[in-house]
This record gives sequence, structure tokens and C-alpha cells, in this order.
Amino acid sequence: MPDVTEINNPEAVAELRAAFERYDRGLEENDVQVLDDSFWDDTRTLRYGVAENLYGHAQIAAFRAARTPAEHKQRARRLENTIITTFGRDFGVANTEYVLLASGRRGRQSQSWVRFPDGWKVVAAHVSLMAEG
Amino acid sequence: MPDVTEINNPEAVAELRAAFERYDRGLEENDVQVLDDSFWDDTRTLRYGVAENLYGHAQIAAFRAARTPAEHKQRARRLENTIITTFGRDFGVANTEYVLLASGRRGRQSQSWVRFPDGWKVVAAHVSLMAEG
Repeated sequence: MPDVTEINNPEAVAELRAAFERYDRGLEENDVQVLDDSFWDDTRTLRYGVAENLYGHAQIAAFRAARTPAEHKQRARRLENTIITTFGRDFGVANTEYVLLASGRRGRQSQSWVRFPDGWKVVAAHVSLMAEG
Repeated sequence: MPDVTEINNPEAVAELRAAFERYDRGLEENDVQVLDDSFWDDTRTLRYGVAENLYGHAQIAAFRAARTPAEHKQRARRLENTIITTFGRDFGVANTEYVLLASGRRGRQSQSWVRFPDGWKVVAAHVSLMAEG
């Protein structure tokens, strides 16, 4: 077996945490270039959002580009219980709960990351709000 | 670089598809043993469900064990747009949309899988319903 079962190699975790935090700042600042660069540039990349299912980097990039400042403001959030776990040197998952500051509603964000020659990229993402009980 | 950038190695895809389908049959049949065996037996495994955030294999197993037959029946579903993608021999993502047969509501299920010595296991999962517009 290769070393995929080496959990949380410190170097891998540090790299992935840096990529995750760069992406998160990209969200805060609505920096579309950072957001686009954080996702794998491939037709097989996908992102399930709160109210949309996006297939391929082009659909995801179009979604980012269409976000208005008002929508962006509504999405301001606080992260809770962020957990990053790596498997070997080239794969990891980043999961976090969040609270929308405007409404107090709780959501979750899941990302699968792969280390490519040009850096760590999200290959699949899923964002959702908790069902209201 | 190792071969993590080999996308959709046929053997890896076939193995992961078999593991995904076994898990899906486990859901249909409410086969708790299969469901528990499909997830990585570790405290770092997590599953965001429609209305719950579960941390560690023990919490996930307790959730499975507590499911009633009535709840199980409400969860019957049809899968759509299932996409499985592997990276190298030891990592993959399985994503699918679904439609709840009882209500017609649409949901999404995302899983990150790692190949361990005892087989492919889900290390992180996220299930949600689409926000109703």
C-alpha cells in the first residue's frame, strides 16, 4: 500500500490549511480570481450549493461571477468546528459548520481537495443549510 | 509527483462504484452493518446529514441504529446524475442528486472515499435537501 493511510502528515495539513484559509478569505472578499483558482479546472469538478448544483469549473466560475455585492453581504458568516484531515500527501477533506451572521441560520461546507502539480485544488464541494426543525 | 493526478483509473473506478452501490443497497435495505462498515472506523470520520452533524464513527453508527422503519420508508429515493471520480488508486469522490419518492423533494449526497487495507471507506459525507426557492 502507498502511504494514503498516513493520516494528518504535518506538512500536508499545513499546506491544505493554507489553501482552505486562502479560499475562505476569497469568499469574505468576494475575490473571484482566488475562488476560481481554488477549484480544479476540469469539467468533472462539481459544487452543490445551498440552492444550485453546478457541474464543471465553467459553471462554478459563472456562478461566482454573477454574485452581486448584496448577495455577498448576506453570506457573511462565522465558521465553527472546522476540521481538516489529510490522507497521505495528496488528498484531504475540509469540513466546517458555519453561522450566517445576518440570519443566524446554520450551514455546513464540505470540500474534497487533491494536490495537483499546480497546488491543492477543490475537486468537489457541498454547501447546505441545516434543515429547520 | 505520485499518480494522484491519474483521473479515473478503470480499476479504481470499478472498485469505488462497487463500494458506492453496496452502500446504496445498504441504505435501501436499512442494513446497518453495511452502512457502518462503509464508513471509516475512526473518530475523525464525519457525516453532515439533512438535519444533524455527526462526528466520529460512533455517532454515525448510533444514528443508523436509531433509525425507525417509518423514517426509513420516508427516505426512499431515486438517484440522478451520479458521478464517481477517482484520483490515483486510493482516493475518490462520489456525488449524486436524489429525489425523495414520498415528497418529490430534491437532495444531494457527497462522499469522500479512501482506500484502506480493508477496503474503500467513506471518510466524510454530506447529505442535504435543496433549499426551497
